Amino acid sequence: MVQKINLNADIGEGHGAYDIGDDAALLKIIKSANVACGFHAGDPKTMHRLVTESRQLGVSVGAHPGFNDLWGFGRRRIHMEPKDLEYMVAYQIGALKAMACYAGVPVTHVKPHGALNNMAAEDEDLAMAIGRAIKTVDPDLIYVALAGSEMQRAAERLGLPLAREGFADRLYDDNANLASRMLPNTVIKDPAQASAQVVRMVTEGEVVSMSGKTVKVEVDTICVHGDEPTAVHVAGKVREGLEAAGVEIVPLIDMDLPY
Amino acid sequence: MVQKINLNADIGEGHGAYDIGDDAALLKIIKSANVACGFHAGDPKTMHRLVTESRQLGVSVGAHPGFNDLWGFGRRRIHMEPKDLEYMVAYQIGALKAMACYAGVPVTHVKPHGALNNMAAEDEDLAMAIGRAIKTVDPDLIYVALAGSEMQRAAERLGLPLAREGFADRLYDDNANLASRMLPNTVIKDPAQASAQVVRMVTEGEVVSMSGKTVKVEVDTICVHGDEPTAVHVAGKVREGLEAAGVEIVPLIDMDLPY
Amino acid sequence: MVQKINLNADIGEGHGAYDIGDDAALLKIIKSANVACGFHAGDPKTMHRLVTESRQLGVSVGAHPGFNDLWGFGRRRIHMEPKDLEYMVAYQIGALKAMACYAGVPVTHVKPHGALNNMAAEDEDLAMAIGRAIKTVDPDLIYVALAGSEMQRAAERLGLPLAREGFADRLYDDNANLASRMLPNTVIKDPAQASAQVVRMVTEGEVVSMSGKTVKVEVDTICVHGDEPTAVHVAGKVREGLEAAGVEIVPLIDMDLPY
Amino acid sequence: MVQKINLNADIGEGHGAYDIGDDAALLKIIKSANVACGFHAGDPKTMHRLVTESRQLGVSVGAHPGFNDLWGFGRRRIHMEPKDLEYMVAYQIGALKAMACYAGVPVTHVKPHGALNNMAAEDEDLAMAIGRAIKTVDPDLIYVALAGSEMQRAAERLGLPLAREGFADRLYDDNANLASRMLPNTVIKDPAQASAQVVRMVTEGEVVSMSGKTVKVEVDTICVHGDEPTAVHVAGKVREGLEAAGVEIVPLIDMDLPY
Repeated sequence: MVQKINLNADIGEGHGAYDIGDDAALLKIIKSANVACGFHAGDPKTMHRLVTESRQLGVSVGAHPGFNDLWGFGRRRIHMEPKDLEYMVAYQIGALKAMACYAGVPVTHVKPHGALNNMAAEDEDLAMAIGRAIKTVDPDLIYVALAGSEMQRAAERLGLPLAREGFADRLYDDNANLASRMLPNTVIKDPAQASAQVVRMVTEGEVVSMSGKTVKVEVDTICVHGDEPTAVHVAGKVREGLEAAGVEIVPLIDMDLPY
Repeated sequence: MVQKINLNADIGEGHGAYDIGDDAALLKIIKSANVACGFHAGDPKTMHRLVTESRQLGVSVGAHPGFNDLWGFGRRRIHMEPKDLEYMVAYQIGALKAMACYAGVPVTHVKPHGALNNMAAEDEDLAMAIGRAIKTVDPDLIYVALAGSEMQRAAERLGLPLAREGFADRLYDDNANLASRMLPNTVIKDPAQASAQVVRMVTEGEVVSMSGKTVKVEVDTICVHGDEPTAVHVAGKVREGLEAAGVEIVPLIDMDLPY
Repeated sequence: MVQKINLNADIGEGHGAYDIGDDAALLKIIKSANVACGFHAGDPKTMHRLVTESRQLGVSVGAHPGFNDLWGFGRRRIHMEPKDLEYMVAYQIGALKAMACYAGVPVTHVKPHGALNNMAAEDEDLAMAIGRAIKTVDPDLIYVALAGSEMQRAAERLGLPLAREGFADRLYDDNANLASRMLPNTVIKDPAQASAQVVRMVTEGEVVSMSGKTVKVEVDTICVHGDEPTAVHVAGKVREGLEAAGVEIVPLIDMDLPY
Repeated sequence: MVQKINLNADIGEGHGAYDIGDDAALLKIIKSANVACGFHAGDPKTMHRLVTESRQLGVSVGAHPGFNDLWGFGRRRIHMEPKDLEYMVAYQIGALKAMACYAGVPVTHVKPHGALNNMAAEDEDLAMAIGRAIKTVDPDLIYVALAGSEMQRAAERLGLPLAREGFADRLYDDNANLASRMLPNTVIKDPAQASAQVVRMVTEGEVVSMSGKTVKVEVDTICVHGDEPTAVHVAGKVREGLEAAGVEIVPLIDMDLPY
C-alpha cells in the first residue's frame, strides 16, 4: 500500500497593492492551501485569485483565520474572550466559503494563523472556541492541528475531522512539541535536513529531537513555508524527498484522517 | 385573498462597545432584517447576537453589505472597480452566512447599505457586480432592490429572486424615483403621512409624488428606519396602518416575488 | 494654603456615526480631558470637536492613546514589541497635537487607555516605551500614571512631568494598588462612598483598603468615568465632595507636580 | 547663477510585514521624501524608519496623507465632506511630525497621495481643505501642488509656501495639465525621454505636449516614482540629466519658492 501525506502552506497573505511570499511557487509544491481571510492578511480580491489558482493546480483550499491585526500580521498575541474569538473565526471561514464559490470548490479545512495558532495550541478554551466555530459553520471541515496540541484534543472532543500537523523546518523537543523559535537553531534552513526529518516523520512516525532522542509523532499533513526564497527551496526538497521515498502527496481530503 | 407585504430594516449597526439604532424595537416591527456585515458597521459578535434575536422573533435575516469605511458609516461614495466591489460583497455575504449557522437559519436576502446602495441603484455595472456576487455565493438569495432601479434590472437580467423596495419615509418624484435627500422636505417625519403613503403603495400600487401626481410603483418590501426614536415611531405606525388595511406583514421568503 | 487637585476623564471615545459616554456632562465636572486618538476609539472629526469643547470649558486636553483595536475598544491585551508600542503611542500623540492646533491649545498630558494602561502599569518595558514616546515628541507633556505603578517609575527615571493618578470608583488593596475588577465589589457605585474615598485621598493622602487598613497614597489627579449615567453621577458627587472640603479643582498644568 | 530644482518621491508605503517600492534606491536620488502616514499605507514603525533614513541621506521629510483605504492603497476616490477631509489630513500631518521628532528633523512639506491628490487638483473645496489643514497645523509647511491646479490656487489664496510640481514620467496636454493615465501612452517609460522632458521643464520653463505644442509650465519640484524597477531607473536618469545640464538638486526648503 502506498503511503500518503499532505503538504500544506499559508498563501494569499498579500492584500491590495501588497504582495508577500511566493504563492505561485508554493502552489506547485503543496496539495492544500491555507488562504488568509482578510484579517491578519488577505482581502476579497486576493482570496478570489488564490482559490482560482489553487483549483487550477488541484490544491484544496482551507481557511487561514487570524487576529484582526494587519500591522502586526497576526503575529501578536491578542487576548480575546473565547466567544469573541469563536465568532471571529466563524466569520472568516464564512468569508472564504463565499470566495471559494467563485472557483466551484469546497473549503476543506481550517488552519489558524500565527499567534492565534500558537495560543490555541496551548490553550484549551481557545482551541475549543476554534473547534466550535468550525463545527457550527461546517462540521465537515478538517481541523488542522499541531500534532499533540490542545487543538488536536479539541478536534477529538468535538468529533471534528482532524489533520495532525508536523513541521518541515522546525526542531522538536523530547515531548514531540515544537522547540521554541526563541531558542537558537530551532528553525531548519538546510533543505536536506528538513527533507530527512519529514520523510522519517511520515514513513516511520518518529522524529529525532533536539537532544538526539527518537520521539513518536503521528502526522497527516506537513506545513511548509514560503515567506523567503530559501523556504520555497526547502519546501521543494521536502516534496522531492517524500516522492523519492515512495510517498504520495495528496490533498487533505484524500488522506485517511483519524476522524 | 389577503394582501401581503414585507417590512425590512437595517440592524446590527453597532460594533464592539458601540451601539446605534434601536434594534430591539425594530425587530418587533419588521419581518426581515438587513444585518451589517462588519465593513461599514457590525462585527462578528454583533452579527451573532442579531441573527439569534431575529430568529427568536421570526424575522428573516439578510446581508447588509457596505463599503469598508467605518468612520464614514458606509455613507461615503467610494469608487471601486466593479470586480473589487463584487468580491467585497461576496465576502460579506459569506461572513453573514457563517454567523447565521449559529441560529440555524438561512440567509434570505441581500440589501446593500448606504452609499453602496445609492450608487448601485444608479449604475448598471455596480448593480450587476452585486448581482453576480449574490448569484455566485447563493442564487436563492433575494436581491432587495429599489423599485425601478438598475438593481432591479440587474436582478431580472441575472434571473435572481427580486424584492422591489419602497420607502416609508421618503418622497417620490414623478418618475417613481426617490426625491433626493438634498431637496427640502423630502424625508417624511410625520408617522400618519408615512403610513398613508405605504398603505397606498401596497394596496393600490401607486404613490403621490412631490408634485402631487399619482405614479405607479410596485413593491414587495418596505424599508423602515430605526436610527432615531422618531423613526421607530414612524415604523410602528406604518405597520399599524398596514394591518388596519388588512395587509399581512410577512418575511421576504413568504412573499410571491417576481423573478 | 488652598489644596488643589485635578479631575480627569476619558472622552471623545465615539467615532463616525457612533457615540459613547456623556462627554458633555463630564466636561463640566473635570478639568483635564483624555481624548481618544483614533486607534481604540475616536476619529479626526471627533478629536476636533472635543478639543474645541474642552477649550471652551477651560478643560486641558491630553492624549489618550490605545491599542489599534476598534472592535475590542482597546480593552484587549495585545503583546507588542516595546519599540512598536512606543512608535504607536508617539503617532497618536502627534495626531492629537495637530487637532489641538484647531483650538489653539497645547496638549498637556498623556494617559494610556484600557489594556495599554493596565499593561504599562505592571510592565517596566512598556511603561518606559510610553515614557520615551512622550519624551521624544514633547518632553513637557505630563505622564499621567497610576500612583505607585511602573508608569510612575518610568516617568521619574525619564525626568518627565508626572501626575500620580488615583481612582474615585475603585477599591484599593493593602499595597495601595487597585483591587482587580475581577474580584467582587471592587467597583464603587455609591456616589457618597466614592466621594468620601477621594476627599480622604486628596486631603489626608491615604485610602482605606478593602481589608479595612489605612494605606498611604499620594495623588495629583483623580480619574472619573462617564461610560454610564451612574458614573457621571458619581463624578459629580466626587467634585461636590472635594469642593465642600475646600479643595480646588484645577487643570493638570496648574498642579504642583512632582517633576 | 546655478539653477536649482527639487526631486521628490513617495516613500514608506509598506507597513507591518509588507514592503513596496524601492525606498533605499529612491532616497539616494531624491532630496525630499513624501512619507505615507498610516492611512493609505505606512505605519508608525515604517514612518520611524523612513524619517531616520531620510535624515541620514540629507533628504527632507514631508507628509504624504491619503484616504483611509489600505485595501485600495489610497487610489480609490472617496467622497468626503471637506471638513472631514481637512481633519483627516491634519491628523496625518501631526502623526508624521511626531515621528520626525525621532530623527530631530522638521517636517518640511505636505503632498497628498493618489486619489486624494487627483481630486484636490481638480476641486477647489478639497484643495482648500488640505490647505487649511496645513495652515492650522503648521503654516511653514510647503504645500506641494500640481503646477496650475486648484491646489496651487489654494496655496496662493491661503498664503502658504508653495512648491509647484511637475512630473517626469507623464505626458502633458496643451493646457499644461497632465494627460489622463487612461489615454494610451501617457506614461513615459523611456528614461531618456523622461530626462529630456524634465531638463527642458526646469531649464526652459516649458514642456512639449502630447500634440507637439510647446507649453509654458513653471515647477519647483519634480515627482519621480519608485513602484517598479524601471521607475527607479527613470528617476536615476532624470537626476543624471539635470546634473549634466548644470542644475543643482536641493531639498524643498532650499528652493526659492513662490511664497
